[in-house]
Amino acid sequence: MKNRLKVGDKASLTKVISEEDVRQFAGISNDTNPIHLDDEFAAQSIFGQRIAHGMLVASLFSGLIGMEVPGKGTIYLGQDLKFKAPVPIGTRVTATVEVIKVREDKPIATLRTVCVNDAGEVLIDGEAVVRVP
Amino acid sequence: MKNRLKVGDKASLTKVISEEDVRQFAGISNDTNPIHLDDEFAAQSIFGQRIAHGMLVASLFSGLIGMEVPGKGTIYLGQDLKFKAPVPIGTRVTATVEVIKVREDKPIATLRTVCVNDAGEVLIDGEAVVRVP
Repeated sequence: MKNRLKVGDKASLTKVISEEDVRQFAGISNDTNPIHLDDEFAAQSIFGQRIAHGMLVASLFSGLIGMEVPGKGTIYLGQDLKFKAPVPIGTRVTATVEVIKVREDKPIATLRTVCVNDAGEVLIDGEAVVRVP
Repeated sequence: MKNRLKVGDKASLTKVISEEDVRQFAGISNDTNPIHLDDEFAAQSIFGQRIAHGMLVASLFSGLIGMEVPGKGTIYLGQDLKFKAPVPIGTRVTATVEVIKVREDKPIATLRTVCVNDAGEVLIDGEAVVRVP
């Protein structure tokens, strides 16, 4: 028996963004920007090292929403993302989604979606809008 | 010599979203929702078949922005996404990014970001905000 979705419901996952993740994501997205793939180029950039694709890190929200909160049968309607800080390869990222609004008139909910590193620094902030089952 | 970024500058790419893309993306994102991976489950869903992760399809904007328009050295500040229609596996998707605003006071630009299928149906619509080099 599933409880009705309510404000405050949340789910998290923690993942180290690996070299292999970044390489595979470059293939899927056609994003072979050297800032993600080329050590020498990245060392000369303002980041000083290679960083993961922002959209790769943001993809962690997708599974939390579709499998945890609200969970199975959820339809992803929208996602707003602010990339707040670069994510060097090897960063341990914790993604959290938390229900902040449930509409009374329609089966639509809004979730805050945040990724932080182990120091608690916000890497990505944003909101998702979903249709709940 | 690079011309200054201006409203109307745009870039596109076309890609068939493959079985392999979806499988790899599931691994990277930890999103193993059966709607993406399980034929039987998906057949019983409102989509009637497996669909690609919305964030996978949206990832096509990342390379266009970082490598084409505005191009190398661009910093991705934000991305707003509306998932307008499901994307069955095997769909040929054309992603386009187009500059719609260039700030005078700061090196910040806004791009409209759209994915369509071969029929011209909008799959994803949204906007990106970037810091230009």
